[in-house]
Parts: sequence; C-alpha cells; structure tokens
Amino acid sequence: MVEDGSRSRRGRRAKLQEDAADHRPVNYHSLDNPFTPVPAFSDDRAMAIHETALRVLQELGIKVLLGEARDLYRRGGALVDEETHMVRIGREMVEQALATAPKSITLKAGSPQKDLVLELGKLVVQPGAGAPHASDLIRGRRPGSIADFREFTRLTHHFDVLHMMPPVVEAQDVPANLRHYAMTEAELTLSDKLPFVYSRGTPQVMDCFEMIRNFRGLSEKEFQQQSHCYTIINTNSPRQLDVPMAQGLIDFARNNQVSIVTPFCLMGAMAPVTVAGALTLSHAEALAAITLTQLANPGAPVCYGAFTSNVDMKSGAPAFGTPEQVKANFGAGQLARLIGLPWRSAAGCAANINDAQAAHETQMSAWSVVLSGATVMIHGAGWIEGGLTVSFEKFITDIEMLQVFAELCTETPSEDSDLAFEALAEVQPGGHFFGATHTMERYQSAFYQPMNYDWSNFGTWTERGSKDASQRASEHWQAILASPPSFIPSADRVEELESFIAHRTEAGGAEPES
Amino acid sequence: MVEDGSRSRRGRRAKLQEDAADHRPVNYHSLDNPFTPVPAFSDDRAMAIHETALRVLQELGIKVLLGEARDLYRRGGALVDEETHMVRIGREMVEQALATAPKSITLKAGSPQKDLVLELGKLVVQPGAGAPHASDLIRGRRPGSIADFREFTRLTHHFDVLHMMPPVVEAQDVPANLRHYAMTEAELTLSDKLPFVYSRGTPQVMDCFEMIRNFRGLSEKEFQQQSHCYTIINTNSPRQLDVPMAQGLIDFARNNQVSIVTPFCLMGAMAPVTVAGALTLSHAEALAAITLTQLANPGAPVCYGAFTSNVDMKSGAPAFGTPEQVKANFGAGQLARLIGLPWRSAAGCAANINDAQAAHETQMSAWSVVLSGATVMIHGAGWIEGGLTVSFEKFITDIEMLQVFAELCTETPSEDSDLAFEALAEVQPGGHFFGATHTMERYQSAFYQPMNYDWSNFGTWTERGSKDASQRASEHWQAILASPPSFIPSADRVEELESFIAHRTEAGGAEPES
Repeated sequence: MVEDGSRSRRGRRAKLQEDAADHRPVNYHSLDNPFTPVPAFSDDRAMAIHETALRVLQELGIKVLLGEARDLYRRGGALVDEETHMVRIGREMVEQALATAPKSITLKAGSPQKDLVLELGKLVVQPGAGAPHASDLIRGRRPGSIADFREFTRLTHHFDVLHMMPPVVEAQDVPANLRHYAMTEAELTLSDKLPFVYSRGTPQVMDCFEMIRNFRGLSEKEFQQQSHCYTIINTNSPRQLDVPMAQGLIDFARNNQVSIVTPFCLMGAMAPVTVAGALTLSHAEALAAITLTQLANPGAPVCYGAFTSNVDMKSGAPAFGTPEQVKANFGAGQLARLIGLPWRSAAGCAANINDAQAAHETQMSAWSVVLSGATVMIHGAGWIEGGLTVSFEKFITDIEMLQVFAELCTETPSEDSDLAFEALAEVQPGGHFFGATHTMERYQSAFYQPMNYDWSNFGTWTERGSKDASQRASEHWQAILASPPSFIPSADRVEELESFIAHRTEAGGAEPES
Repeated sequence: MVEDGSRSRRGRRAKLQEDAADHRPVNYHSLDNPFTPVPAFSDDRAMAIHETALRVLQELGIKVLLGEARDLYRRGGALVDEETHMVRIGREMVEQALATAPKSITLKAGSPQKDLVLELGKLVVQPGAGAPHASDLIRGRRPGSIADFREFTRLTHHFDVLHMMPPVVEAQDVPANLRHYAMTEAELTLSDKLPFVYSRGTPQVMDCFEMIRNFRGLSEKEFQQQSHCYTIINTNSPRQLDVPMAQGLIDFARNNQVSIVTPFCLMGAMAPVTVAGALTLSHAEALAAITLTQLANPGAPVCYGAFTSNVDMKSGAPAFGTPEQVKANFGAGQLARLIGLPWRSAAGCAANINDAQAAHETQMSAWSVVLSGATVMIHGAGWIEGGLTVSFEKFITDIEMLQVFAELCTETPSEDSDLAFEALAEVQPGGHFFGATHTMERYQSAFYQPMNYDWSNFGTWTERGSKDASQRASEHWQAILASPPSFIPSADRVEELESFIAHRTEAGGAEPES
C-alpha cells in the first residue's frame, strides 16, 4: 500500500495542489480535427444537392448589383441581363473556378506562431462576430463601442484557442467613415493574430490593406504575394449579391487576400424550409461568389462557407443549436468536401442571457461544426441573442468549452506504461492511486485544468459565495483586462499607423458602400 | 412573388402561429444511434487494453467478499484464496462467459410501446440516478424523500425521450428496511416504463421481484422467461466486489433479469491516472462481474458498462464533462464493441447549480456517450454536484438537450422535392419563403419545437420578466406535476400491491445487505 511510503497521503496531496496547474504541453495554436466527418445525406444525395445548385445558377441565376462583377461574369461566359441584373452561370464556369481555387490557404499573421493554414482537416476558431451590442454583468447591455471592441480584441488575443480576430462587436460610437481605421488599429496594435477587414466598399478596403501592409512592413508586392487578412462575404439570400460584397470579393481576390464566403440561409425565411433545400440555395450562392473570385484572379484564396439554421415558425425569429442547424452543418460539410475547399461554419445561440439554454444551444451547434469537419468555427464564444449581442461572461464560459474541444484534438496515450499494469499490481483492492508511482509521474499533466468551471463541493461552493458560472466569468474577464497587455507592438509602427489615420481622417475618411 | 397570392404574408404567418406546434411524427420511444462510433485508440491498442485486463484478472485477481460468488468462480475454474478472498480468473473463463452472454436483450415494460431492446446501435436514455439530495428553486436543496422520488418518477414517465426508470433520488425518509417497497410501488403505479431494482441484498431483491411479478400478472416461470426489470452493479474499485453487488449479480442472473455492470473508476483516485489505465481496471472488473452472471446462469442477460472520469488533482473532487471523460467513453465503447455486448455509459456534471457550467459539462459528456456508441445513457437529465443532487430544473433543461439528440436520430429528408428547385424558382431574389408553396406544405412538421428554450428577442424576453432557463424550467415541472397523472394503473393490481407491502411491512420488511 502506498501509505507505507515515506510520504503521507496528506503530504502528497498538498504537493499535488501546488504543482498540478499549467504543466500540460497541449498546443492550442494549431488544431487538427480528430473526428471523421458525419454526413447528413448519402453521397449520391449530397451530389444531387450540388447538381441542383448548379442548375439553380444556370437556369435561375443570381442577381448581381455591381456592374463590374456582372462584367467579369459576362467575360467568363455567363448570360447577363443588364435590365434585371440577373446573371446565369454555366456549370463549366463553376468547375473552372473550383479547379483554380486553392485547396490550402496559408495566412500570415503578425508572428509565425499565429500563422494559419486553412484546409480540410484543420480546426480554426473565432469568437462571436458582428454583434451590434455588447453586454456584461457590470455595465449591462449597450450598443457596441470602440472601447468594447478593443476589450474583446484583447480577450481574443489572450486565449490561444482563438486563432483569428473577428469584428466581435460594432464600434457604433465611431462615425461610419472612420470606423475601419479605429477597428483595424485595435486589431493591429492589440494582437498579432490574423486581422479581419469588413467589405464595406473598395475605399475602406484599400485603406485597411494599406494599414496592414505598412504595419507588417511589407511592400505592396510582398503584401499581394501572401494572405495577411480576411473578410467575410454574406450573400443577400435568396440569390442576390450586393455592391459592397461583390466589391469585396473582387478586391480581396485581386490582392490575394482571403474571402470567406458565407451565405446566411435561415430555413423557412430567406431559404427553403427543408435542410436539403436551404443547402441547395446556400451552395449555389457560395459557388457563384467563389466563381467571381476566380474570374477576378484565378488562384485567389477563397474559403467556402455555410451558415444555415431555422427560424421559429411561430414568430419568424432565428434559432440556433437546433437539430436542423446540426443537420445542415453535417450536409454543408459534405458539400465542402465534394468541392475540396476549406470551409467555415458557425456555432450560435438564441438565448438572451448566459444561462443553461445559451450553453446548450452553443455547444450543440459547436459539436455540429466540429463533427461536420469545418475548417473555421465562427461565433465560438460570447455570441447571444442570435448574434445581436456578444456577452463578456459568455465569452469566458464558451472559451472553457473550446478548450475542451482543443483537448479532444490531442492523442490519448496508450503505450504499455499508460495501461498501468504495474500500478494495478501496486494498489491493493480497497486502496487508491493518489500516491502511486504511476500517478506521481503523471499528475502534473494528466488532466485538463479548468479555468472557469468550479469543481468544489456544495459546501465549499456555498461558503465561497455560491457564484454561478457567469459571476465567476465576470471576475475572470475583468482580471484579464486589468492585467498589462501581453502583446506590445513596435512603437515605430504604431506611430506610423496613427499618423496614417490622422492624415486620412483629416481628408474625410472613407464612407462605407451600400 | 408569394405576396401576390390570395393570402397576405401576415395572414399566412398568423396561420403558422396557430398550427406550428405538435405535428412532428418523431418517435422518441425507440432511438437508433445515427453516429459511427468514435475511437480513442487504434484497434490494436484497444485490444492491448482488453488483453491487459485479462492479465489483471488472471495474475492479480479480484477480491470477492461473498462466499457463494467465490464458490461459483471456483467451480468455473478460478483460483480462489479463501484467506484473502482473492479470485484469479483465467481468460478461458472470461471468453466462455462472453460466448454465452446475449448480444441483444429484450426488456418487457408495462406496455409494449415501452419495451426496450438493449444491443449495440440502440440509444436508450435514463435521467440522473442515485442522488442523496433533491433540489429545486421553490423548495431548495434537501435530502431526497419518497415524495421527491415519486415526483421524479412522474417526470420520468412524462417524457418519451426517457426510456428506463432509474432510482433518481434516495427516499431517505423511508426506513432502509422498507424503502424498496416504497420505491418499487412508485415505479409500478406511476409509470409503465421499465422499473429499476436496487441490489441491496437477496431479501430486498426477492421482494421486488415478487412485487413486479404480481403487478405484471406473471407467474414465477413467466417472470423468469423474460426480463422485466434491471439493476445496476457498481464494483468497489479497485478490484473488489462486495456482498450485495455479488448477490445482485447472482440473483438477477438466476432470474433472467438484467444486471448493468458499471465500475465507477475515477482516474487518479480509485483508478490509474491515465485514461488507458483506468479503462484497463474498469474493463477487468466488468469482465469479472459478467463472468459471475454467466457462471450463475449461462445466457443470463447482462449489460457491459463503464463510468470513467477524472478527479481534480488539486482537491480529489470528481469531475465530469472533462476531456478525459470524453476520451474514456470513446475508449470504453471500443472495448464494448470488442466483446459485442450492449453497454451503459454516463453523462454528468460537477456544477453546483443549473448554470452554464452545468449545461456545458452535461452536454459534453452526453455527446461522448452518443459518439461512443453506448446503448444506455444514464444521468442524462437533472444530475448536478457529481451526482449528489438531482435538480428539478436541470431535469427539464437537460430533457431539451435529449430531445435534440433524439431528433438527430431521425433521417434528414433529401428527396428531389426536398431540394426545393421549384421553390427556389418561385421566390425571386430579395424575396422570402414564408408563404411559398414548399413552405406551406411542410411548416407544421419541418422543425423541432422547443419546450424550454426561449427564442423571443431581447425586448419581448425582457417584457416577459427576463426569465432564465431555470426559472422557465421551474414553471414547467410544476405544471406537469399539477396535471393529472397520464398513467393510471389497474386498481386491482394497486390494491394487491399495497396489501403485499402492508403484509411485508408488518413482518419487519427486509434490511439491506452491506
């Protein structure tokens, strides 16, 4: 029995308490998805959806509001009606585009450790994005501000399990013609993770490219040789591509930067009520957008995407974490694998606060993202109210879930010594393994150490104030933001960036395209 | 455009509001797991765990506290030390037992619709079980009582997604020698789902068999021809089988009733600190118990089981929903498939209230149960504090999660009509599908309708009192319990049962074995 050794059980347990944290060698920066993708349909029915999407593009077409984009489609062989702006795209054009779109995309961040590869089999995570509101337990729910955006940018930088910088909340207190300066400045100066750029028209996009180029110390040519930022393109479902989105696809393609094409198709609202029908529409729209990138610049990096869930048929409200969203993600993964491109999917929830509903909906959709083999999970942390708000507390509690997923990407040791025959021989019936040699050799790195989960018993938990997950999360994000920033940018680059912004601000900035 | 039709959008939406609920034809009573099981190890390393477990039984042995069980093992060929009570079991004995243990078990409930089949590929769900405490928002946290047990039995009966009746909470207000009467009476008179019987010694088990037999109107022989109830056998890890558990294995086997063998192995405490080592121990113990059932009655129905998670190495407290539990479930599923038996796994959480932590931990472990191909998920609803309490509110919020899982067990329609080409042609760019013919034909059954999730927007949710998931769940369970019972037993059977209990009570009942 282990108690016979020179060290008492109590002494060993005390030692464990000192040493148990922070010894796990798990690399959260780069994750390979360990799960075989789950299908929603038989292979031939997935192919039928692909074929029907091609038929939608060829026979029904897509409405394209930007003349330059219609020109590109026409020169590529599409039938364009300049009166209705309808563009009908033949399958050969789509197949040609899919042949030139790269299957693997390398993205250069501010440091090599943060560089990313987008390809099938990788798992890249972003927190919630694009919310008009921010909320937390201290300051309440309010319109997003640049202060909120900066805080979320710092939190996104803080956690290794978040790989890309998204536009977490809208900085509504900054005028629309100057907002892209403030957001890009925050992204570049508060983190070396990959920055996001909104496609709100060519002038803003060019401003952002210039800021990123200069901050990274790249010539225009160097910038265009690799991808240094990304944008997200939402089609206007059903079957419509508006001016800023079309401009974004063209601008990013021509500059070799990454467009993530994501139709947002709500079954029963802007898409057919069936999973298969909504995916047919989503796939058609994505293929049209991907085709445009390759017409603008063959070989340009572009990521497939799908964000398909259902609405509440009683109210029309969008819902997330539903069985239908799960199935749609499984199906979208089949379509992505069929065309071979990296692809983006989304977690999400409709809950109004960070309660059990929020956690259940978010994790249900997150599992569907992981099991569908998506390359990029967006809205992985903080997103509530169907995307109208990002919550600081939910940001933290979701990170714990994401870290558990990251742990599942690691191998489970199964060498002979892990099977522990000797330990089983050492510990007698009725004994315990706390002090066994096998345990002592491994306890520091055996288990994931939780960050926000409280595993204390009811008595201890009560004595400590009966704090729920959100209350603990509130303390956690405040502590992170109260600490000195862990990323310190070059002072020269910051000065140069600020001078650029001052100069452009004086010149009137750049209005968004609509 | 659909607005051109005779019915306005508003009119159609109002119609949707009236009709959308309760039209889904999904059968929650019988679920087939749609997921290909996920492995934790390569096939050869899973086999190495199996082989090492056999070596543990053969070389190290298991301590068996019941003389009758040691006799059975000895007569089967085991090496038994009557001084230490150690039983060493050869691999041929285990292999022989695995050859006679049935791969498919039919369980007869109180009505044919509630009958169950336990075999690999099925998914059978139970709520949380075995908790000493109950808690809810109205009455607080308290020792479990027979009133609590009866209420949870009614709630378990209410939801089709719960298939077996477990001992949700301990009826601590009923003396130990009479408790099995009160619990079995509740199970039989409040539900026709499959009843559970505690293995707390032969006298109590025989009482329970007699009550079930009489209530179902079966002769002793008819009772023994099929399985009408089940028990759960927890070994005393490491490597120990106590008296009541060994008696239960023998009694259930001899009467053709089902033992679910579930070693509860906490990595780093009562089991090795590694996933592979804990599974080696758990597997060895399960094989020893399964072997005993087949020695008592070759062909007796027995279900494999594993409940393996880790402890917090700082405090020794058990943890659930951890990456290590997920991986252990994946590995246990490999071992179950290797021996071909149906098997039981468990969800769980360590959270002290029904908050985001509780939901995340529960769903993470529930996914691991589903993805590991477990036949039976126990602790699927309500379990908090690592099993010390079952919460009425969490019971409801977890049921929502379980119903989403049940929906994932259904096929995703993908006929040509589901692909919706005609609907896509009907709805023009910028339009919507709310009133499309394709939608109108399907809206009543297209989507899962949530029970507790609130999908209203922030304004409406605030106007309605800003109720979180637990507050809504509290109203929900109260409403169910305030409604008349949906199961009405035969008055004659109830009278007979009560007379039996009165008679046995007068005779002193039956003390539990320890």
